[in-house]
Amino acid sequence: MTSQGFTLWLTGLSGAGKTTIALELERELLERGLRVERLDGDTVRQGLTRDLGFSKADRDKNIERVTYVAKLLSRNGVAVIASFISPYRAARDLARSETTNFIEVHVATAIETCAARDVKGLYAKAFAGELKDFTGVDDPYEAPLAPEITLQTENVSVQESAAEVLRYLEARGLIPQREPALAG
Amino acid sequence: MTSQGFTLWLTGLSGAGKTTIALELERELLERGLRVERLDGDTVRQGLTRDLGFSKADRDKNIERVTYVAKLLSRNGVAVIASFISPYRAARDLARSETTNFIEVHVATAIETCAARDVKGLYAKAFAGELKDFTGVDDPYEAPLAPEITLQTENVSVQESAAEVLRYLEARGLIPQREPALAG
Repeated sequence: MTSQGFTLWLTGLSGAGKTTIALELERELLERGLRVERLDGDTVRQGLTRDLGFSKADRDKNIERVTYVAKLLSRNGVAVIASFISPYRAARDLARSETTNFIEVHVATAIETCAARDVKGLYAKAFAGELKDFTGVDDPYEAPLAPEITLQTENVSVQESAAEVLRYLEARGLIPQREPALAG
Repeated sequence: MTSQGFTLWLTGLSGAGKTTIALELERELLERGLRVERLDGDTVRQGLTRDLGFSKADRDKNIERVTYVAKLLSRNGVAVIASFISPYRAARDLARSETTNFIEVHVATAIETCAARDVKGLYAKAFAGELKDFTGVDDPYEAPLAPEITLQTENVSVQESAAEVLRYLEARGLIPQREPALAG
């Protein structure tokens, strides 16, 4: 199947659930026969961004390189799922202007919830001043002004969050409808 | 058409004719209906490599990032044409190991010919010591040991060079045969 490419851009705080939702979306899109690339800090670090830290300049470079990759993939029919904190509006707007069928997905988990989960123990360190430039603590998160999709993750399962994104993609005609379940 | 991706990697000295051949290949592959991305210093600088210079470390980073992009594109069915001096064997071997259907094309124009052409005046500056780390002058070019294709560009037209590459791709089944010309 030759399909149209697009760029799902998941933005939100550390611990908001971006990667979990991205993995679920990747699985669903692969099941529908699409060509999919999931980009996040872990997948791009080795080949693309391992010289970068967390300063404003480095965060911008990080998003700039990811944007370049997403541009080339999405214009060649690949479904790109990019999940990055991407705290700065201007950097996300660059991605919007450069990539094909850019869809901003705000994973809008409140910082209190992210900090309470604190899966990696990063918020504790940030609040203790042991981690610098931590988004939401001592570095700003500029929430999207007009995201295509806003996901509230509290009391919502990962499957439901992913399903909301998939319905959007179906409505836009960017992915085929799911085959109805076989009877019997 | 869903086609198999591949990575044509053109390596050779500055002025060897890599970009000229790459442009001709891009035109031919687009005509055959393939999805094509041509990567070279100019196309990748803005989004990917503008922080890099010409030291060994920077050249390696440059090829490493390009390799990452070529990997993602070629495994998703895109025909990638990468043209970089890429003087170091180890860096090219990284590209070979990471990308899909890697084809090393040595554009083997002799340095005397490149220096005599000297389209950009770079060899004159390098011989005068005004340019440092210039491949073939004061920085090594490690010629490929077993390239899939070696192109001699002296007394050979760009079209003939490109045709040799296209015949190889056809023989490998990576591109469709060219439609025969219509009669009349």
